[in-house]
Amino acid sequence: MNVKPTQSELVRDQIVRDADNPRDSNVARFGADKPLKLDAGVELSPFQIAYTTYGTLNTERTNAVLICHALTGDQHVNNVHPVTGKGGWWDSLIGPGKPIDPERYFIICTNVLGGCMGTTGPASTNPATGKPWGLDFPVITIRDMVRAQAMLLDHLGIETLFAVVGGSMGGMQVLQWAASYPERVFAALPIATATRHSAQNIAFHEVGRQAIMADPEWKGGRYHLEGANPRRGLAVARMGAHITYLSDAALHRKFGRNFQNREKATFSFDADFQVESYLRHQGISFVERFDANSYLYLTRAMDYFDLAADNGGVLANAFRDTPTRFCVVSFTSDWLFPTPESRAIVHALNAAKARVSFAEIVTDKGHDAFLLDEPELFAIVRGFLDGAGKARGLPWLSAKK
Amino acid sequence: MNVKPTQSELVRDQIVRDADNPRDSNVARFGADKPLKLDAGVELSPFQIAYTTYGTLNTERTNAVLICHALTGDQHVNNVHPVTGKGGWWDSLIGPGKPIDPERYFIICTNVLGGCMGTTGPASTNPATGKPWGLDFPVITIRDMVRAQAMLLDHLGIETLFAVVGGSMGGMQVLQWAASYPERVFAALPIATATRHSAQNIAFHEVGRQAIMADPEWKGGRYHLEGANPRRGLAVARMGAHITYLSDAALHRKFGRNFQNREKATFSFDADFQVESYLRHQGISFVERFDANSYLYLTRAMDYFDLAADNGGVLANAFRDTPTRFCVVSFTSDWLFPTPESRAIVHALNAAKARVSFAEIVTDKGHDAFLLDEPELFAIVRGFLDGAGKARGLPWLSAKK
Repeated sequence: MNVKPTQSELVRDQIVRDADNPRDSNVARFGADKPLKLDAGVELSPFQIAYTTYGTLNTERTNAVLICHALTGDQHVNNVHPVTGKGGWWDSLIGPGKPIDPERYFIICTNVLGGCMGTTGPASTNPATGKPWGLDFPVITIRDMVRAQAMLLDHLGIETLFAVVGGSMGGMQVLQWAASYPERVFAALPIATATRHSAQNIAFHEVGRQAIMADPEWKGGRYHLEGANPRRGLAVARMGAHITYLSDAALHRKFGRNFQNREKATFSFDADFQVESYLRHQGISFVERFDANSYLYLTRAMDYFDLAADNGGVLANAFRDTPTRFCVVSFTSDWLFPTPESRAIVHALNAAKARVSFAEIVTDKGHDAFLLDEPELFAIVRGFLDGAGKARGLPWLSAKK
Repeated sequence: MNVKPTQSELVRDQIVRDADNPRDSNVARFGADKPLKLDAGVELSPFQIAYTTYGTLNTERTNAVLICHALTGDQHVNNVHPVTGKGGWWDSLIGPGKPIDPERYFIICTNVLGGCMGTTGPASTNPATGKPWGLDFPVITIRDMVRAQAMLLDHLGIETLFAVVGGSMGGMQVLQWAASYPERVFAALPIATATRHSAQNIAFHEVGRQAIMADPEWKGGRYHLEGANPRRGLAVARMGAHITYLSDAALHRKFGRNFQNREKATFSFDADFQVESYLRHQGISFVERFDANSYLYLTRAMDYFDLAADNGGVLANAFRDTPTRFCVVSFTSDWLFPTPESRAIVHALNAAKARVSFAEIVTDKGHDAFLLDEPELFAIVRGFLDGAGKARGLPWLSAKK
């Protein structure tokens, strides 16, 4: 772990600055008159949502597409990231001529509630103290994230979304949108996700949280106030989680047992194998852009997600008589959100008499396949949105064809 | 993590004491005249092996069974553990009337080289300094562990083992025994193992090592000298590894999404779910009996294990014309050492013209199934050893039947 403390302090301070004043983002601020009612039973006020948009809202306001990001994503879905300098995290899927085309759609992506890129979260300023919230920030849920997004849509004057699209934790938000606001979602595209977090997934999250909390620099969550930064703990959490985003086959194909710049074993604890060096890099680069407390809150929100439990134990009740049309996508090598989780969604939607299609894509890329170059995924998203757009009467589908 | 620092210091000091003077164990000491030649290219001398035995060696010396332990096991395979007070780790398989019966066999189990229960390892006294080795201890391999065991057998006057039995890292030792000393192994029983560690498994090990090294109490491996103990890092490493020993299905069956002593979510970072509480307990109890540096060395030995690479890239060469008879066992839900790894062993043994049988046992218990109550495993071990015993001419098989 070669992150120098000075660099760490810069990162920590930048995260706090960005938490209130995000770069390259729009910000919607909600005052005391518009509190966010949280599942934890408290009201959050004031709060703000950082978001990006791409394309133009049509006069009928029927072409809005909400993109929901995953655990470690953010609102920079289709622009250069202000911290890393890298391209948008879904540039593969979004862009001119791509399946989600800003020349057709008005694309919105918000940083989720609890995040660290400008939407209110544990690194944001607690109005009661004038200092970062830390662990005084209330524990939030996926439903809370979606409530906040709905308030943003009210703010933007958008009654109905043409589509909500997201993978992993983003897919959980898609499902929650369809469950909470069925009349506001014309089409829903949950990818590589589930209606509840499994025991194994909760276990992996708990290890990550314990890695952060075990770091003395975490300081009970008050590191922002005490000039510290639990970068080592966060890096370990990221390394462990990153393995679950890939697959045994993909790791074997990419790295196998290849040594790093060497012919033979060095008989040491250096990053002897390429896969070790790769993982260490994942850990180090992650701490440059992410807040450790946000990691705690967002993993917790995923753990708590359980759509069936929220609906009397019957998953179909979450979608009863929904007007939304769904396309559910899974990947064969995804062991974090394996295909049976998606099948459970499809079964419930069928029981709820919903319009639903389902695709399982064959790939060895694991859970992260939804972020990668997967032509079959692109074709499915394009086809589903075209079909839904026709049903919605979106103009270019008749005009251009 | 409720381990008090004072308790931690006691644990650390006890580990150092036990490293040279193990409790409830025999110790074989090898002096300057009998150095251990390590794969790293250095000689280890003096060194010692802590071991237990059960049963009696027959006059023909043909009934010795060597049990090889897994990563976090030790020599207390069939007696009360001197630190934890719990029964032997393989009491299910070993004992009067059980598949490996001390009334028939002379059973030997050694603490592996690099361990922390009395065989020389990083917590042992470095003769050059009179203080614990720490990271000055040479990096060791599975082959080094087996070399040390072979020296113990010489010391005990046992030329040939009737059987070598082990699971996981123990199974790696079984395979290495058959490869290094084919004439000394009549029967070999590698369970839930592989001939090389996969990229994904190296990745999981690296996360565990980084968790330990990220703990400031680790102090560059010199914690024994500096009054510290990286118990938090070791607990995190154990928690992460423990998930890989189970299975998604087993975790779902045992814990599901059940809350711990509560009806509903607490909206906190307490161990809200039963699976979190279980994992935390696994972490805390592990640090009471294990040395963090040993964890580094033993995981590294597993990472380096690659029988094919040691034999010109052809796995079958490791076993060419072997006289040993093999029984290879895997478990359907083991995703750490999945069945294809065992099939690769069987294919290589067939190519090497070895006698080999293979069983894949259907269970949802994951990798840890080899340690648990698996009647099918017990029947297979009993049957294989009986058949081999008959071929070996062991007396009770004719006398009793």
